[in-house]
Amino acid sequence: MSYDTTTPAPAVAPPLGVGMVGYAFMGQAHSQGWRTVGRVFDLPLSPAMAAVCGRDPEAVRTAAAKLGWAAAETDWRALIARPDVQLVDICTPGDSHAEIAVAALEAGKHVLCEKPLANTVAEAEAMAEAARAARARGQVAMVGFNYRRTPALALARRMVGEGRVGTLRHVRVTYLQDWLVDPDFPLAWRLRKEAAGSGALGDLGAHAIDLAQHLAGAPLTGVSAQTETFVRERPLPDGGALGPVTVDDAALFTGRLESGALASFEVSRVAAGRKNALRVELNGTAGSLAFDLERLNELEFHDHATDAAEAGFRRILVTEQEHPYLEAWWPPGHGLGYEHTFVHQARDLVRAVAAGTEPEPSFADGLQVQRVLAAVEESAEKNSVWTPVPVSPDTV
Amino acid sequence: MSYDTTTPAPAVAPPLGVGMVGYAFMGQAHSQGWRTVGRVFDLPLSPAMAAVCGRDPEAVRTAAAKLGWAAAETDWRALIARPDVQLVDICTPGDSHAEIAVAALEAGKHVLCEKPLANTVAEAEAMAEAARAARARGQVAMVGFNYRRTPALALARRMVGEGRVGTLRHVRVTYLQDWLVDPDFPLAWRLRKEAAGSGALGDLGAHAIDLAQHLAGAPLTGVSAQTETFVRERPLPDGGALGPVTVDDAALFTGRLESGALASFEVSRVAAGRKNALRVELNGTAGSLAFDLERLNELEFHDHATDAAEAGFRRILVTEQEHPYLEAWWPPGHGLGYEHTFVHQARDLVRAVAAGTEPEPSFADGLQVQRVLAAVEESAEKNSVWTPVPVSPDTV
Amino acid sequence: MSYDTTTPAPAVAPPLGVGMVGYAFMGQAHSQGWRTVGRVFDLPLSPAMAAVCGRDPEAVRTAAAKLGWAAAETDWRALIARPDVQLVDICTPGDSHAEIAVAALEAGKHVLCEKPLANTVAEAEAMAEAARAARARGQVAMVGFNYRRTPALALARRMVGEGRVGTLRHVRVTYLQDWLVDPDFPLAWRLRKEAAGSGALGDLGAHAIDLAQHLAGAPLTGVSAQTETFVRERPLPDGGALGPVTVDDAALFTGRLESGALASFEVSRVAAGRKNALRVELNGTAGSLAFDLERLNELEFHDHATDAAEAGFRRILVTEQEHPYLEAWWPPGHGLGYEHTFVHQARDLVRAVAAGTEPEPSFADGLQVQRVLAAVEESAEKNSVWTPVPVSPDTV
Amino acid sequence: MSYDTTTPAPAVAPPLGVGMVGYAFMGQAHSQGWRTVGRVFDLPLSPAMAAVCGRDPEAVRTAAAKLGWAAAETDWRALIARPDVQLVDICTPGDSHAEIAVAALEAGKHVLCEKPLANTVAEAEAMAEAARAARARGQVAMVGFNYRRTPALALARRMVGEGRVGTLRHVRVTYLQDWLVDPDFPLAWRLRKEAAGSGALGDLGAHAIDLAQHLAGAPLTGVSAQTETFVRERPLPDGGALGPVTVDDAALFTGRLESGALASFEVSRVAAGRKNALRVELNGTAGSLAFDLERLNELEFHDHATDAAEAGFRRILVTEQEHPYLEAWWPPGHGLGYEHTFVHQARDLVRAVAAGTEPEPSFADGLQVQRVLAAVEESAEKNSVWTPVPVSPDTV
Repeated sequence: MSYDTTTPAPAVAPPLGVGMVGYAFMGQAHSQGWRTVGRVFDLPLSPAMAAVCGRDPEAVRTAAAKLGWAAAETDWRALIARPDVQLVDICTPGDSHAEIAVAALEAGKHVLCEKPLANTVAEAEAMAEAARAARARGQVAMVGFNYRRTPALALARRMVGEGRVGTLRHVRVTYLQDWLVDPDFPLAWRLRKEAAGSGALGDLGAHAIDLAQHLAGAPLTGVSAQTETFVRERPLPDGGALGPVTVDDAALFTGRLESGALASFEVSRVAAGRKNALRVELNGTAGSLAFDLERLNELEFHDHATDAAEAGFRRILVTEQEHPYLEAWWPPGHGLGYEHTFVHQARDLVRAVAAGTEPEPSFADGLQVQRVLAAVEESAEKNSVWTPVPVSPDTV
Repeated sequence: MSYDTTTPAPAVAPPLGVGMVGYAFMGQAHSQGWRTVGRVFDLPLSPAMAAVCGRDPEAVRTAAAKLGWAAAETDWRALIARPDVQLVDICTPGDSHAEIAVAALEAGKHVLCEKPLANTVAEAEAMAEAARAARARGQVAMVGFNYRRTPALALARRMVGEGRVGTLRHVRVTYLQDWLVDPDFPLAWRLRKEAAGSGALGDLGAHAIDLAQHLAGAPLTGVSAQTETFVRERPLPDGGALGPVTVDDAALFTGRLESGALASFEVSRVAAGRKNALRVELNGTAGSLAFDLERLNELEFHDHATDAAEAGFRRILVTEQEHPYLEAWWPPGHGLGYEHTFVHQARDLVRAVAAGTEPEPSFADGLQVQRVLAAVEESAEKNSVWTPVPVSPDTV
Repeated sequence: MSYDTTTPAPAVAPPLGVGMVGYAFMGQAHSQGWRTVGRVFDLPLSPAMAAVCGRDPEAVRTAAAKLGWAAAETDWRALIARPDVQLVDICTPGDSHAEIAVAALEAGKHVLCEKPLANTVAEAEAMAEAARAARARGQVAMVGFNYRRTPALALARRMVGEGRVGTLRHVRVTYLQDWLVDPDFPLAWRLRKEAAGSGALGDLGAHAIDLAQHLAGAPLTGVSAQTETFVRERPLPDGGALGPVTVDDAALFTGRLESGALASFEVSRVAAGRKNALRVELNGTAGSLAFDLERLNELEFHDHATDAAEAGFRRILVTEQEHPYLEAWWPPGHGLGYEHTFVHQARDLVRAVAAGTEPEPSFADGLQVQRVLAAVEESAEKNSVWTPVPVSPDTV
Repeated sequence: MSYDTTTPAPAVAPPLGVGMVGYAFMGQAHSQGWRTVGRVFDLPLSPAMAAVCGRDPEAVRTAAAKLGWAAAETDWRALIARPDVQLVDICTPGDSHAEIAVAALEAGKHVLCEKPLANTVAEAEAMAEAARAARARGQVAMVGFNYRRTPALALARRMVGEGRVGTLRHVRVTYLQDWLVDPDFPLAWRLRKEAAGSGALGDLGAHAIDLAQHLAGAPLTGVSAQTETFVRERPLPDGGALGPVTVDDAALFTGRLESGALASFEVSRVAAGRKNALRVELNGTAGSLAFDLERLNELEFHDHATDAAEAGFRRILVTEQEHPYLEAWWPPGHGLGYEHTFVHQARDLVRAVAAGTEPEPSFADGLQVQRVLAAVEESAEKNSVWTPVPVSPDTV
């Protein structure tokens, strides 16, 4: 017998219309997330890819057809206004986050905003304030620190919460890439302060800071920093002339968590041979954890209570049903990839929308990261002097 | 301005209706492939998920809705007969492959069949014969050795073809899992000869054999083998009683490639701690390659021409635009997962359909693997004596 | 106050005079062992490097001075006859082992003989018989399977004995080198059957077999094998002419342990990029162990009783006081090297001499390995047919 | 024929009498170096282990007999005065380095001094001054930064010198241990400022700083630092009472090399699971290098000129004849251990003595490290503010 399933079965979840702004790298990754999430996870709401927005009419239309969005818009205000859009997903460069997010929240929409939350603390504060106000109206807002949704890092957070590392002494995060080693790489938007806010710091450092605070369960209270731009001029994207690079190539900073643990950070886009090397290590009184994004299905764990003769870092292949997010995926040993973090992000956000609960990371969390970024820049300008980070009462 | 993209844009590729039989683990993985492929790659035909087939009406209807198939069928003959199905994707246990595949081919449909191609050489021969006949009518048939589509192994094949390892001396494949270590794991279909054909041999060994022959570019001409079933009785799925396990837990065999290279194989489902540990190593006169499916974004390469002082196995992170399949995915270092092999398989199959070219691996390739499997079983029964493998003229 | 320590302090252990035959690679390694052992471990006897023996008077005298032997001999019979030699250490090619060892034992000396014990089973039987007779006179004889003395493999053996892997299912040993990839490598003694007995098989396979049997605690009862010589002619050492290679470049074999476990072996001297890659893996019902000689301070252990969410292979850095042989060495993390296996071998042999106990591995163990080697060669000659290995009652 | 080699052969090198102060961990390691070096390397002078010195007459006599020193002394001044001692090897805690080293140099002896050179910059300056004066008299003085002599790090230095990494952008050193995680570990001398100078900083950080400067070929010109003592009181060694820990458990600092490269450092003795984890990474415009002391026979190298499709970090097994120090050791793949660094140190020092050349690292190099250590402590006390390091004209 044949069954037509285009008519939704009665049990199908009510739809949640999503509108996305931006369709470059991040927009493509988010599209994968929205397209897949309901096919793998059981969700209380069924995400519908309502419309995507971009400035170039031809290009956005092509992108919509390619990525599976039902409609295309050229004005983000029109996107926000669409009645079939209940959630606005912001995948643009950082300089437009605040304006779009605040408008969407004020229009009664839920918001997912790519990281870093904004280019300045002031913008981030406005966004967090808008989110707080919207929260009272039942809306949710989440910032896209997607690496929290790597199963291995979600497991790391769970293990820290269970006390498996004891009292934390050290958090160590390096995030290294190498696409700027080549001095002929052009002066793209990510290399201009007015668009990107900062360089490796905002791009990679924002992830590093968020993960450190999230995994440790405590905010950073101060930092000491250095930043550097090794290649000071690069070819303009549209021709041979050189223009000034106005963001950092690399940033090094040490910090202190509210819990007393020491933290160290190094981010760079000129570390030859490192492609997406986000490495996180936690050392505590009861154990240690280590992670490398280039081997994202693995988490290393040392249990300090094990007899010395048998102790060692064990490589947990984070592909078991018992692991975060894995209940819906493949049998053990069949690893996931980078893009699955966006599927998981979509899952958690949809659940938060349905339940009316605050999603993590919230805009307040994003603001806190922004404050650390600002403190890093301030310390780097002031001879690396220790620079306190104001801590909001509602973060981490 | 707003654009509705539900009406396909003029440039959109003509559809290719897909009908899938089976919706368990493999069916879910294939569904991911069909759903994603056109959203990532530029294809000459646009796969449409027309219908899925399963025996339980309720379950198949739920699966269709969940996985994104437009219709559900309970009889595979009805699925084949559907005019909106041009390609039949067979994801059932091995005992039904031959019947479904031959019927689909005779009905003029293209076919994708999960591995191993069949449970016996006779079935595989019938299937290869049907594929040959269908080929003359412009149809294509492919067997689903999806690991060929791991970018790292596709790169390995390319490098072998480019002479980067020189004359091959050794091929070494181990494929280890551990889900049968537990003696209480029930007597599922994969543990019954009548459904599965064999145990670790057909399940894991088929992949191992296909990869060895594919990567080396030469068929196996003989084998010497041992097999073993360590746990001889297991609980029946529906209750506490024990039933006999009629397939192997593990198989060890050595072989010889037509090129003269030595090959060694070990497959097991009782290797504690190994989850999906498919490891491949090639040693040649000019270099060596090594791969581990548990780290599927990596390929290790030793270039024997490098000065001894600087030589060593290099870890190629197979995530560059220059790498097979990667032109459509993410920036360097942003790894893919297991399921992407099915996206790539779908891409290559769709292209073959559109171009009217023979896809790889063909049913003839699948038959060749089946002959090796049969020789392994024969050798194991005959005191491990060297057992020749007949080689078809049109394989590998 | 100043103390002269050249006069031994009263508590110093009585001396054990050692005479060594051969001073090439193995002789140098053994010299390191004899020179160091008493400086690190507390021993019941104090090894004295009495004399070294070689055929070239000039060369052996230079070697003695260099390596720290008090005297030099050119005739091994004279070495054996020296009253200051109580233990004869045989570091010559395999074709002379039997004659020297039997003579030394008959002369009342203890014997350490490099592996493989001999070039034929008949020689090995004579040696084992001589050792048995000598044993009755209080002498000891040990064969130099030094890798048993790698702390990590000694730990592996201990853990197997403690039941940490449960019932063994699989033993997997590969031992790969690459010095014969180059076709211009000359026809040295290791490539001539009359001197070396066999090629990779006796050189590397002997270690592999000994470790498999030792770690598993059970002898091999049968094998099925292939061997190959890829480069059939090589330049003679003394000039450009080519001579025939009469030993194997590589050997592949599968076997069965008396306990029922499956065993697989692959040894090669043409595996490009592998320098001394002895890899051992054991899979049992309770856990698994893995070792790689290129990372000899590490042992990987998977405990199958660990919760799935936290399980994984843990990298034990075998440098703790609790680990075998480590009580006398450095603090944790300060690794040992290859040559330390000879120090440990010397320690265990000296203790056996002092205690009058049978050392491990005994000549009977060496004979058992020889029987496996012979069975491998026989199977390879007979179409890989299963070839039983006679098991002595007193082995493993 | 028999040859007695106790009478040195005519060609034997003239002796170099060595006197060592201290015989604990470092003294034992140095003893291995002195005992072995002449047996492995061809040396212009033959080191003779003349005498060892310690305060406890019984213990030092036992140590001398055990470790192979010909005589024992209880007063280091007497040791220096011995006519059979030409080189004084100082293996005591840091608080006595200056006094002994200056006295030895003034007495006309060559000096090897363990690291860190001293506990204060003032002491180190006096030592460097004494070395400079002695240098004019033909004496040499070396500080024992033995890790420079790890073959892998010596290779790294050679490759940097050859331009294989291009212009250096980043140096990254972490040195982590975990023996102070246990709060019951007693208040040993290494935990008291008056004996050790500082904690992890002087113990581990001194190595880290020396390696960074040595590998980069440039001194540090400034630092910004944090230090911390997590466990502030520990049991006194002689009983249950608690005493104050007066040194750091961990230190984090960032720095800048004269060449413009950024440097980051983290050292800790409370990093659970890390035993002797000295990790070094260099990133330059042409390539990158990475090293981990827990795998000391390996060096990872990324050549940025390699085509992207084949590029990756290659694992160089540093055991080839072509590698530094390896010409005298074992065949490829037969790794060395920690203690071999002391053999190599002895080799290089003996050669410098014979040639009358300045050894590396000199006391001036040791002084430079001391200045960095002092700057780290100063910065840590002053809110992490950037603290310049004075650079001597004759360093690095």
